[in-house]
Amino acid sequence: MDKVRVIEVKQSVFANNDAHADRLRRELKAQKTFLINLMSSPGAGKTTTLKRTIADLKDEMRIGVMEADIDSTVDAEAIAAAGAKAIQLHTGGMCHLDAAMTEQGLKEIGAEDFDLVVLENVGNLVCPAEFDTGAAKNVAILSVPEGHDKPLKYPLMFQVCQALLINKIDVLPYFDFDMDKVVSYAKMRNPDIKIFPVCAKTGEGFPAWENWLRQQTTAWNG
Amino acid sequence: MDKVRVIEVKQSVFANNDAHADRLRRELKAQKTFLINLMSSPGAGKTTTLKRTIADLKDEMRIGVMEADIDSTVDAEAIAAAGAKAIQLHTGGMCHLDAAMTEQGLKEIGAEDFDLVVLENVGNLVCPAEFDTGAAKNVAILSVPEGHDKPLKYPLMFQVCQALLINKIDVLPYFDFDMDKVVSYAKMRNPDIKIFPVCAKTGEGFPAWENWLRQQTTAWNG
Repeated sequence: MDKVRVIEVKQSVFANNDAHADRLRRELKAQKTFLINLMSSPGAGKTTTLKRTIADLKDEMRIGVMEADIDSTVDAEAIAAAGAKAIQLHTGGMCHLDAAMTEQGLKEIGAEDFDLVVLENVGNLVCPAEFDTGAAKNVAILSVPEGHDKPLKYPLMFQVCQALLINKIDVLPYFDFDMDKVVSYAKMRNPDIKIFPVCAKTGEGFPAWENWLRQQTTAWNG
Repeated sequence: MDKVRVIEVKQSVFANNDAHADRLRRELKAQKTFLINLMSSPGAGKTTTLKRTIADLKDEMRIGVMEADIDSTVDAEAIAAAGAKAIQLHTGGMCHLDAAMTEQGLKEIGAEDFDLVVLENVGNLVCPAEFDTGAAKNVAILSVPEGHDKPLKYPLMFQVCQALLINKIDVLPYFDFDMDKVVSYAKMRNPDIKIFPVCAKTGEGFPAWENWLRQQTTAWNG
């Protein structure tokens, strides 16, 4: 396996991250690259979810992955092994990515060569939700062991996401996790949010999530 | 139950948070208040751990809790119900607490009336680790479902903590979690870290953790 490329990304020098993100989104639309910004707590299963999604979709679309991390390359190595092009973005201790950091990554990976690029954001339910990365869609993963109260405690994350994967449903019997409650709490934050209960380890629930991703990618890339 | 008091805390105006934290620590030492800064990912079990710890120790020491949260009072209500005095600190979207924010909370709770004050930091493995709050000791909770690789991916958190609780050991059979690995990864970051495998739901492992907390509190308060 090739050594994973590591990019040290720097925060925006522009005061207005939102304007930067909007410009980036227009450029991605013009070049037909669908960018999703994938966010979750540490250990909710972002990398495992991505590995399975890549394995299932890699023959029908060109997928690139940008792995953001404080400082390690474990995720990018796992993604590269799953068969997608992956680069690692090091944030130098920053807890989120902004549009400028995302743009540096897109340039390095050569985003124009991909139908779908996934930005795996830093594992954190707070800061990443505050910064528009320029992604077409935001997707969050909440895992069953974290508890169904998280949309109450981290409102912005659920408000800014268009899709929510409820991961690790295989361990539902061992946790006090109320699926009806989490759905209702998430919809309090965003009534239009699409919710997909899944298990990244077994693949349960993945067809619905992958259909959504396929439709969104096709709609964006026209 | 009394309505929980909510304090809106503001970030330090001082450039030097470390100096502020050191001054706060000296004041806490002089007034015999042992402050611990409790950190973890969202959903790792900080509040459940605290509730059990309070129930077990409340007859031998005076315990106060400051619950930091983006914006809700669910945790402070749970702690108050468990029998400790609790206040809620709202960070106004900030992902961490600094020494100034902590000091505002200590003033509001009346820290001099307590032998032990626990600051439950914002659920986040990144930002809280970067700011000295003035606490005598930092304690992290990592839960089994998050995975044993977290000390590799969030190095600073494990480096700055003197104690680490590995929570939710009751679900070890359902996860690929390697206890030997997590111990060795955590000790890579901090060779002196004390590690306590526990289950906050059942109380397994709590005597060792509570002994440590009791010894540390006594040593600090002299």
